[in-house]
Amino acid sequence: MTAATYQRVVLASRPRGEVQPDNFRIESAQLPELADGQVLVRNHYLSLDPYMRGRMSEAKSYAASQAIGETMIGGTAGEVLASKHPKFAVGDKVVGMLGWAEMGVADGATLRRVDTTHIPLSAYLGVVGMPGMTAWYGLNQIMMPKEGETILVSAASGAVGSAVGQLARLKGCRAVGIAGGPEKCAYVVDELGFDACIDYKAGKLAEDLAAATPDGIDAIFENVGGAGFDAALPRMNAFGRIALCGLIAGYNGDEVPIRNMRYMLTSRLTVRGFIVSEHMDLWPQGLGELGQLVAGGKIKYRETVAPGLASAPDAFIGLLKGRNFGKQLVKLI
Amino acid sequence: MTAATYQRVVLASRPRGEVQPDNFRIESAQLPELADGQVLVRNHYLSLDPYMRGRMSEAKSYAASQAIGETMIGGTAGEVLASKHPKFAVGDKVVGMLGWAEMGVADGATLRRVDTTHIPLSAYLGVVGMPGMTAWYGLNQIMMPKEGETILVSAASGAVGSAVGQLARLKGCRAVGIAGGPEKCAYVVDELGFDACIDYKAGKLAEDLAAATPDGIDAIFENVGGAGFDAALPRMNAFGRIALCGLIAGYNGDEVPIRNMRYMLTSRLTVRGFIVSEHMDLWPQGLGELGQLVAGGKIKYRETVAPGLASAPDAFIGLLKGRNFGKQLVKLI
Repeated sequence: MTAATYQRVVLASRPRGEVQPDNFRIESAQLPELADGQVLVRNHYLSLDPYMRGRMSEAKSYAASQAIGETMIGGTAGEVLASKHPKFAVGDKVVGMLGWAEMGVADGATLRRVDTTHIPLSAYLGVVGMPGMTAWYGLNQIMMPKEGETILVSAASGAVGSAVGQLARLKGCRAVGIAGGPEKCAYVVDELGFDACIDYKAGKLAEDLAAATPDGIDAIFENVGGAGFDAALPRMNAFGRIALCGLIAGYNGDEVPIRNMRYMLTSRLTVRGFIVSEHMDLWPQGLGELGQLVAGGKIKYRETVAPGLASAPDAFIGLLKGRNFGKQLVKLI
Repeated sequence: MTAATYQRVVLASRPRGEVQPDNFRIESAQLPELADGQVLVRNHYLSLDPYMRGRMSEAKSYAASQAIGETMIGGTAGEVLASKHPKFAVGDKVVGMLGWAEMGVADGATLRRVDTTHIPLSAYLGVVGMPGMTAWYGLNQIMMPKEGETILVSAASGAVGSAVGQLARLKGCRAVGIAGGPEKCAYVVDELGFDACIDYKAGKLAEDLAAATPDGIDAIFENVGGAGFDAALPRMNAFGRIALCGLIAGYNGDEVPIRNMRYMLTSRLTVRGFIVSEHMDLWPQGLGELGQLVAGGKIKYRETVAPGLASAPDAFIGLLKGRNFGKQLVKLI
């Protein structure tokens, strides 16, 4: 073991409104001695995900806020450099929650060894990882679409949304996405195979939604909230289901009032918020299915890769503004 | 059979905003000849319920709108005057949907004979009828509260809300109501036995809700929507359930935007809109339980009785403004 110090990104201050670069600070840290049961991991990829915005605030959310001065939380994929845990050997590829750091020490129990023979390491942070499981859970446990039904998913070109639509298509559903800009929409339809994609930046959400969902909407996977969600509610069919996964439109503290709540009543909708990490019992099943679909080429995905640890803050800010295209990663090695 | 004509209230015009007396018209109608399978019923009581407001509009709702010039829809309780149906005899007490009329002819299949030995006829339009079943369904099928949990119900002194809170108390829950004015709140606590009641007219909803729900809220029965609902969302505990039964705050077309929708996500809530008439399979069980509880004095109820058919429009307008106290009825005989 050579590296006694490593670089990491810590939370320097809590954002007021939009996240700014100076909310983060890069600093050096000392590696601790490896204790029994621990593993030293060099991270190859960091995962950047919208939920991290919530952790940066003090406001009540589903998870405790991130402490000032501590390493930014986050999923990571890397390689074992040293192990005092019987289940991990040097060279193993592992996924964990080491945060925005070049390396780190983790309890072996918090790591998962992954097989990169047929699936690239980075995909374990995306479609075969937490985002893929998020899509799988929301679709199968909340939306429960039947063949022939229409589903709508916002942030459709993103890590979660792209999986939702493709999984729904495999079930015989009509999959309609919402994304920002013609390039993303073309990708969602031409590459991912959605039946339609609505560009929310085109400024005619209601009209475009009506055209794309001639038989109404039976289930929504909501990542964004705000105007798109509000416009979709009146198009819901009776007994529709809404998986509430994210409300990125409001993550900076902007108010995003919902005016069409009455359709939750008149269309007898079921709306359920969820956090995939609370349903770990289903991960083996879900990740198994997703892994097979990815290895078999049945599900496509796209990544936006920012180079080097220092690029993480800007890449994260871009993610919150929708500048990424597919899964946002930071590549360290 | 003597009466060949009877009086009825028809929808004269659709309301624009608030319902006005001239949206209704009283007129005489001819009784048809009784065909096989039909029953002639003289109504003793008309039920007035908020859902009728939706039927008066053309806007999309869960039920077809009421046609102009036709008898206002509604539940009724009365007595059989003549029968060509083998299951009904003259003098039987029956509940049906004969609308705002002194009498009418109904298919026997749409009528239910009721036993008034231990339960007054009018209660079959309230706590042992559709409103009671609405409470029972929302509580047992959606809110599913466990002993020791806190439930919140709006319009707590009304026909539905008063049953929700009392049923929840019988399950060992803390029941908190929202009602309009100190008199209704006193009734909800002192007579119905709720643990607390918040007067929404006092103008400090958030503060009063916090004081009344020190352990947060585990389930809501929502009849009203608007500011009260919005103020309750931040107090929901993780995995809370919301039965969405009515949004009376918006029935006149006023916008009632929800600003706190993010709590549906962060507290992983389940929100479900429902209409009790779509769950007829559960009515025998629910009405059986409610009937026993009412006959045994375990559930109390209160009625506001308007005298005579001509009083129905004003009584209905009052109901929409919360002027009633408990179940709003019109007494014809």
